[in-house]
Amino acid sequence: MQVELMANVLGDNDAAAQQNQQLLAEHNVLAVDFMGSPGSGKTSILEKVIQQLEGLTVRVIEGDVATANDAARIEAAGAQAFQINTGGMCHLNAPMVRRAMDKMDLASTDLLLIENVGNLVCPAAFKLGAHFRFVVCSVPEGDDKPEKYPVAFRTSQGVVLNKLDLIPHLSFDAEKFWDLCQQLQPEAVRFATSCTTGEGITELCQWLTMQHSQLTSA
Amino acid sequence: MQVELMANVLGDNDAAAQQNQQLLAEHNVLAVDFMGSPGSGKTSILEKVIQQLEGLTVRVIEGDVATANDAARIEAAGAQAFQINTGGMCHLNAPMVRRAMDKMDLASTDLLLIENVGNLVCPAAFKLGAHFRFVVCSVPEGDDKPEKYPVAFRTSQGVVLNKLDLIPHLSFDAEKFWDLCQQLQPEAVRFATSCTTGEGITELCQWLTMQHSQLTSA
Repeated sequence: MQVELMANVLGDNDAAAQQNQQLLAEHNVLAVDFMGSPGSGKTSILEKVIQQLEGLTVRVIEGDVATANDAARIEAAGAQAFQINTGGMCHLNAPMVRRAMDKMDLASTDLLLIENVGNLVCPAAFKLGAHFRFVVCSVPEGDDKPEKYPVAFRTSQGVVLNKLDLIPHLSFDAEKFWDLCQQLQPEAVRFATSCTTGEGITELCQWLTMQHSQLTSA
Repeated sequence: MQVELMANVLGDNDAAAQQNQQLLAEHNVLAVDFMGSPGSGKTSILEKVIQQLEGLTVRVIEGDVATANDAARIEAAGAQAFQINTGGMCHLNAPMVRRAMDKMDLASTDLLLIENVGNLVCPAAFKLGAHFRFVVCSVPEGDDKPEKYPVAFRTSQGVVLNKLDLIPHLSFDAEKFWDLCQQLQPEAVRFATSCTTGEGITELCQWLTMQHSQLTSA
């Protein structure tokens, strides 16, 4: 009963995700979903990308259990933000994203960044219709996280290892971390970033620009 | 339909939690449930407590999505560990805890520490039958976490702020953090710890010992 219902929920969600995907394609919008633990630095990464990215109009969907704090930070960084408060729910789903997209001027949007609820487990089960999912993991969380939360890493097309600047103060084995990522999803694109020093943000912006240009020239 | 089913799930869980509570009471076992984000340091805190606590027999239930790594760490620290792999599920529930308790010699157990799945959202909805729930939050996660994940802080009887040693390397406003905790749950007991320097572990051990002695003298 529970399993069947869960299958229905996921089936309905997948159908809505497919519609989102179609709508994004119609408007040549590149969409990327960022998932990660609370405090892994998802909002900070988006702020830095918004500030550095040139030539693309970025819009952001902010998913949070509570508060509109992150949307305010995104707007201050210079992009229009659409806050979704899940009211206790532990992940975004495709219909929530659709409702936010319906309020957005998609025709003038190049890049849609979606920040999922801070959670390394549940968001992995729900497709949103984005072109890529990135899992964000920060150095203080520990080098064992891919192994302990494998679904997030297996189902993501990109990995961002954030808070690189804290490595000197912690025992974090970066080689171990990337080896575990490699085992779970060999094809994922990888970035190592610090929002304090700015390291790695340029590379992430270049990759996003390249993906957008491939999308629009296709 | 979904809401009703969720209510049933929570109702069934609450009944099982009450049975756990009764079983713990029969054997004079003090039980504490630790929840927190991935990498907040739950396992490290339990290791330190096990190493420092004197005069009490500690047993640990380890909840993880995958791997038995944490149980191995707990055993190396000197306590018997019972691993629960949730196989993708984002929280422990009371029946899972009961199955682990059934394998445990409760008569010789003084203190049962339960490490929940690394997740600051979902575990808050599921009672396990423990006497106390502690929410663990680490400095690198940021001082805004109580506000952004209010249910975890509102439903916990204790807060552990961990990784204190990283404060010099980050902009973390401890006063703001504790003010937010105060607003959500004024009666929660508070500890500030570092598993690197050992700060705060003695206080946590003393509190656990005191709670156990109150339980057995009641």
